[in-house]
Amino acid sequence: MHGAVLYGARDIRFEEQPEPAILAPTDAIIRLPLTCICGSDLWPYRGIAPVPAPTPMGHEYCGYVEDVGRGVASLKPGQFVIGSFFASDNTCPHCRHGFQTSCEHKTAVSGAQAPRLRVPLADGTLVATPDAPDADHIPSMLALSDVMGTGWFAADAANVKAGSTVVVVGDGAVGLLGVLSAKQKGAERIIAMSRHEPRQTLAREFGATDIVTERGDEGVERVQELTNGVGADSVLECVGTQEAMMQAIKSTRPGGSVGYVGVPHGVTLDGADLFFRHVRLLGGPAPVRRYLPQLIDLVFSGKINPGKVFDLVLPLENVADGYRAMDERRAIKTLLRPSGD
Amino acid sequence: MHGAVLYGARDIRFEEQPEPAILAPTDAIIRLPLTCICGSDLWPYRGIAPVPAPTPMGHEYCGYVEDVGRGVASLKPGQFVIGSFFASDNTCPHCRHGFQTSCEHKTAVSGAQAPRLRVPLADGTLVATPDAPDADHIPSMLALSDVMGTGWFAADAANVKAGSTVVVVGDGAVGLLGVLSAKQKGAERIIAMSRHEPRQTLAREFGATDIVTERGDEGVERVQELTNGVGADSVLECVGTQEAMMQAIKSTRPGGSVGYVGVPHGVTLDGADLFFRHVRLLGGPAPVRRYLPQLIDLVFSGKINPGKVFDLVLPLENVADGYRAMDERRAIKTLLRPSGD
Repeated sequence: MHGAVLYGARDIRFEEQPEPAILAPTDAIIRLPLTCICGSDLWPYRGIAPVPAPTPMGHEYCGYVEDVGRGVASLKPGQFVIGSFFASDNTCPHCRHGFQTSCEHKTAVSGAQAPRLRVPLADGTLVATPDAPDADHIPSMLALSDVMGTGWFAADAANVKAGSTVVVVGDGAVGLLGVLSAKQKGAERIIAMSRHEPRQTLAREFGATDIVTERGDEGVERVQELTNGVGADSVLECVGTQEAMMQAIKSTRPGGSVGYVGVPHGVTLDGADLFFRHVRLLGGPAPVRRYLPQLIDLVFSGKINPGKVFDLVLPLENVADGYRAMDERRAIKTLLRPSGD
Repeated sequence: MHGAVLYGARDIRFEEQPEPAILAPTDAIIRLPLTCICGSDLWPYRGIAPVPAPTPMGHEYCGYVEDVGRGVASLKPGQFVIGSFFASDNTCPHCRHGFQTSCEHKTAVSGAQAPRLRVPLADGTLVATPDAPDADHIPSMLALSDVMGTGWFAADAANVKAGSTVVVVGDGAVGLLGVLSAKQKGAERIIAMSRHEPRQTLAREFGATDIVTERGDEGVERVQELTNGVGADSVLECVGTQEAMMQAIKSTRPGGSVGYVGVPHGVTLDGADLFFRHVRLLGGPAPVRRYLPQLIDLVFSGKINPGKVFDLVLPLENVADGYRAMDERRAIKTLLRPSGD
């Protein structure tokens, strides 16, 4: 088969890859009807995260089980399943506490920008849908695998409740789905920080009540004005830079919470500053596995349609164009169609 | 009257002070049957926090109302009241959210190492006890004003629940009362980190099930051993140094919480490290006002006796000896008796 491999900064290639095979009895092989590019793929693509060796890319996936190892008990070929970027056993103490991305046996999944994928710890990692979804629903199922699960975790970590005032920092796919998550959780006011018109439109469609175009301290000032100088109950940080983190912390009211899901790059926090702000922090790689059953239901029942974040569709062989479009912010998120080779 | 005034590092004097008077209509004057020295008074006493001008010391207080301004509606002379180190209006949005130490009108209270004290925003700040307490209960009432309220907030911020495994970093009065708070909240296992035998004894009396004498990474290793490599659900950081904060963070399981109440001195946190640890953080000056009604009930009903942290009693005029004893760790906490001059 052919898949996407990153060789270095802005050097993504579509090339021959070994066919995935069952390596451990707990593995499953799944066929991916669609795949996609993640905002976090741009860190190594842009050379900000190092690429020590050619790396098969892609960690968002859903699809049909083709084969399972002899140790897999809960899945069988033909089922439609969704997983997430870390495989997890779903039985260790951290998994039982709902933090599967800190699983004692976690393994990063990679190579999903391809027609087929090997998933380790299949019983713990993959969740089967009640029925195979319609073709129309597959982009939303794919979104659950990472960006929707991550936006949901951000809202959960930021303690969004019915009636909350929420700020979302970052208008990438995760930020936009953070808006959708906050709306689903009953937030009354959702302030999206975005300077890009198409993203503002989607933010409003997902439930944003206000848009703030200013950034940094000006953005904070605008949030303070909108909240009568109180600050927000919950702030979702979906970028990962120092500026975005401080924008999030300073937009939060004392006793409020920041849920941060942007992978921090060079972020440093001053203990005394945090202390006197009384801001609660929780972040990390989203434990998507915890939320999958609930989110699958929300998609099946038509309550959420996170697949709307895909605004560019390309054949998988044009994956390099997909990276470029996202890098240049011409696309929010690129959906890729494997040809089935 | 005479009170304690700090002039600079290790220069505390007992000297003539102006008699407190009603300056604003919302003020109250209270007479202090007992007063005390706080661990946080040691930061300026040791020269770690600057002392730009001679400073009347003391911010923990309870006592009898002597006089109230004409704007005070809820209190009258003769009542026994308890306040905390920040005066607060208890009506602003931050107060209504239970974060009175971030009150929009907060004012630091100082000068309580004296026989009488002016308390601003008396209606918002002071809580009257149902009856005047017995003399035996007054040390515990005084402890509620700061150290007990702070230990309670640490346990609350660290999300201690029935059945929790808890670690307490710091064996000062706040840490010891953090142990007591965790016990009251139903923690099953309470690991106190302490190297001082008298403090270990009190920790056990307050509910500690395990004592760890190691510090830093060795201490973390010991906690990991005691928790089968999982880490604690809740960690109370009651020191304020970089070492103590990292000890707290590394002792917490993924998805667990750190409540930090040691005023951070030179503490810096790495965003990526926190992110991948999945640790929830909340700290700050304890909103003691929120907890006072509940804690007063617990003292009156005999369920808690936080006054046990006072292990040295001196006449107020010997306040300098009290500072020295705490500085040299010969005393956990010094109780001072004003002579009533």
